[in-house]
Amino acid sequence: MIELRLVGIGTGNPDHLTRAAMRALNEADLVLLPRKGAAKVALLEVRRVICAEVLTRPVPLVEFDLPVRDASGAYLDGVQDWHEAIARAWAREIAAHLPGGGRVAVMVWGDPSLYDSSLRIAARLGAGGMDLRVSVVPGITSLSVLTAAHAIALNTLGAPVVITTGRQLRDRGWPEGTDSVAVMLDSGTAFEVIEDSRVHIWWGAYLGMPQQALVAGPLAKAGAQITALRAQLRARHGWIMDIYLLRRS
Amino acid sequence: MIELRLVGIGTGNPDHLTRAAMRALNEADLVLLPRKGAAKVALLEVRRVICAEVLTRPVPLVEFDLPVRDASGAYLDGVQDWHEAIARAWAREIAAHLPGGGRVAVMVWGDPSLYDSSLRIAARLGAGGMDLRVSVVPGITSLSVLTAAHAIALNTLGAPVVITTGRQLRDRGWPEGTDSVAVMLDSGTAFEVIEDSRVHIWWGAYLGMPQQALVAGPLAKAGAQITALRAQLRARHGWIMDIYLLRRS
Repeated sequence: MIELRLVGIGTGNPDHLTRAAMRALNEADLVLLPRKGAAKVALLEVRRVICAEVLTRPVPLVEFDLPVRDASGAYLDGVQDWHEAIARAWAREIAAHLPGGGRVAVMVWGDPSLYDSSLRIAARLGAGGMDLRVSVVPGITSLSVLTAAHAIALNTLGAPVVITTGRQLRDRGWPEGTDSVAVMLDSGTAFEVIEDSRVHIWWGAYLGMPQQALVAGPLAKAGAQITALRAQLRARHGWIMDIYLLRRS
Repeated sequence: MIELRLVGIGTGNPDHLTRAAMRALNEADLVLLPRKGAAKVALLEVRRVICAEVLTRPVPLVEFDLPVRDASGAYLDGVQDWHEAIARAWAREIAAHLPGGGRVAVMVWGDPSLYDSSLRIAARLGAGGMDLRVSVVPGITSLSVLTAAHAIALNTLGAPVVITTGRQLRDRGWPEGTDSVAVMLDSGTAFEVIEDSRVHIWWGAYLGMPQQALVAGPLAKAGAQITALRAQLRARHGWIMDIYLLRRS
């Protein structure tokens, strides 16, 4: 039997780890450390630092290369194939390192419930015949880190909030029925499609990390500033991860 | 100068505390522990337990009664007056216990950014003339605890999520443009207004606490079960706090 724990680790600062997350990592027989994406070196290093800081016993850490998503075809098809390939990679590492079963921890950026694929990948493992029990240790979301850094609330009083992706914002514009829109997974600057002088933006990149950058202001003015800064930071660090909150007054 | 830290503590389990939250509590010169609402005894007790577990030095804990919201008039007016009264209560306790300034920590249920009034109350303190610096330590939201308990994601692949209140759901029905709706601050069972056989519900009460209760299933069937269980649990414990996720397939 494999007991798989998806452990939310917050956004790169070991101080984001909860007591439950630290315990889950220490109780693991194997911690999987994926190398993936454009930010792979930096994000792998963060996970290594977290392990070095919070592990109080010698838990085996296994690093492995994640397959790359095929971005040539339809978006959702590409993602499905990618998840299948990742599930095969997890299964391979688990079979190699825990042939008799045991506890596996996977460190998940932010919280496993929000725009993360670990739960879907785990479901593929179970469907593929692995004797598997999955549990989740909640983590600090990047939205909480963004709003904390700006010392603002996500919602206005008693009002709804939409959490969406850069792709959705670009394709569909401002969502109906809300004045607060949090945007994640934006590989560019989708806020540029919003032309509304009443909109304010609170933006953050590398949240919780030493290179954290914040900009806030009316979108009409701050938008251009963010676009320029984002390009600069991306060039300097070789990668960027950022999110933002838009609010219409 | 008063340095006010709003510290997200998760939802009642000391294991939800992050390293940053534990440090912020230990660095405080004063921790304010409000007694409020129907759940006041239980929730105050949770905060006491957290302090007992994570404080490694003798930080003064001050308990005080929060004013009660006047629910007789318009909702938003009542909330504004209530926040003003809470700000006065905070100011009174701070003046009494830290006349020379210092660090004050307020423990916030979940995360300070999501349907919590602490940031708005702090803004009133600043506007009222207190020399104040406010910072936020992000916490585990009840949404993350709910989805972790059910081992589900909040969003479907690449799709948006609406976070809203019971009042909004009851008054406006299913929000436009989304298949996933997370409902917080529901003092009743607002999901009863949704009549759609394609909707699934994942519900949780007392999340993270020993009496945690979970129900999941098609809304048409699970809804009635939740309504009955909720009344039963509320009678047994004298209070209830619950949230849920609705998803249309």
